[in-house]
Amino acid sequence: MTRFFVTSRELDGDFLVLTGENADHAKVLRLKNGEQVLVCDGEGRECICTVSDVSPGQISLVVLSRQESKTEASVRVRVYMAFPKGDKLEHVIQKATELGAYEIVAFPSNRCVSRPDEKSLQKKLERWQKIAASAAEQSGRGLVPRVRVLKSYQEALQDGAQTDLPILFYENERATTLRMALEEQPFRSVSLLTGPEGGLEEREVEQAKNAGFRICTLGSRILRCETAPLCALSAVMYAAGEF
Amino acid sequence: MTRFFVTSRELDGDFLVLTGENADHAKVLRLKNGEQVLVCDGEGRECICTVSDVSPGQISLVVLSRQESKTEASVRVRVYMAFPKGDKLEHVIQKATELGAYEIVAFPSNRCVSRPDEKSLQKKLERWQKIAASAAEQSGRGLVPRVRVLKSYQEALQDGAQTDLPILFYENERATTLRMALEEQPFRSVSLLTGPEGGLEEREVEQAKNAGFRICTLGSRILRCETAPLCALSAVMYAAGEF
Repeated sequence: MTRFFVTSRELDGDFLVLTGENADHAKVLRLKNGEQVLVCDGEGRECICTVSDVSPGQISLVVLSRQESKTEASVRVRVYMAFPKGDKLEHVIQKATELGAYEIVAFPSNRCVSRPDEKSLQKKLERWQKIAASAAEQSGRGLVPRVRVLKSYQEALQDGAQTDLPILFYENERATTLRMALEEQPFRSVSLLTGPEGGLEEREVEQAKNAGFRICTLGSRILRCETAPLCALSAVMYAAGEF
Repeated sequence: MTRFFVTSRELDGDFLVLTGENADHAKVLRLKNGEQVLVCDGEGRECICTVSDVSPGQISLVVLSRQESKTEASVRVRVYMAFPKGDKLEHVIQKATELGAYEIVAFPSNRCVSRPDEKSLQKKLERWQKIAASAAEQSGRGLVPRVRVLKSYQEALQDGAQTDLPILFYENERATTLRMALEEQPFRSVSLLTGPEGGLEEREVEQAKNAGFRICTLGSRILRCETAPLCALSAVMYAAGEF
């Protein structure tokens, strides 16, 4: 069933109207009266609706039934990624959304080459959030992951430490595997933190340890900065029984 | 330690000479007499060597010690991917190499939009093999995954069925998870087969079942054709105890 995202408020009533980009999308799909569509608030609630009227620029829908989203993971995974070069963050946002991430958080660390300034950041953040929304729609998610930007590595540590299981991946760690960290105790939320192209500094890894992060390896092969978070996220979803 | 790949034969003696692209690479790195480097045959054997002479276009090395590669996975994973559109296969080859794949095999399926002809394929195959070699070097692998192309879906099924555990991922499969398949019995080799943008046809899935493939889900979210093999590969490596 085709999936549209609207605001939480729009989903409250028994009728709703798709406008703007949603209406454009409906036009491309040639939606007709009587067809069923899925309308989500992007926060986990969904309605099955029937198309009752198709007019230029607006599609009227009648709500048939309501449900909690069935495609959201049982575990909430926040992906913390140090600003990478180029458009790698866009790639990670798209893929992490498909893979079921709950939030994607970008932050600067000492070896980051890319350090977007405040002004360009606002524009980029809008763009990144759109990428997440579009990937959520395509992959059939009931929730659009929030994309956030933090101003410092310290903030990222504080923020990430709020989940049940904050994990940092470090290429010089040999002893502690992700599996060890995941099997220590039950968890409902996880933070997965990875460094930029040049890696995290030893001092930064120490700071994370002090902030409550487990320091884990992702195996003996060196992963690129855009591969590591997606590899870790896939493994966490597998370990959580998602597939 | 910097890693160079040479032929298996070159690795047999007590001395060896880096030429061509290896010599170019050594020049960029400004290798000097007395420095140590790792030389691999790309098939799992490695030598630790000392630079004994640096001349234009050739670097002479003395073999200090030999070892089996320490970065190869305990499980051999073959990634079977239906030809995707654009340069997605290049992306998957690079990432699957980082993630430890043993082989990457491309093949046509009914809904493939991209169907490279014989002539362009030979050139592409060379390019793909180079991408694998470069990713193997960067990620510190001891083995360069072989990239292969098969002529038909039937061939892919026959080829994939040769491993201990051939698995096909299908978005309409709900009951059987990857975990169930992996926990059924011990395995040393796995085939992971995924479809193109439009997915595999039901008939093709039936054929795979008949050829001995387990049909598994990768969860309730729909993954893009370039995301699915990397998600599955990450999960298999995790399940095999790699991290």
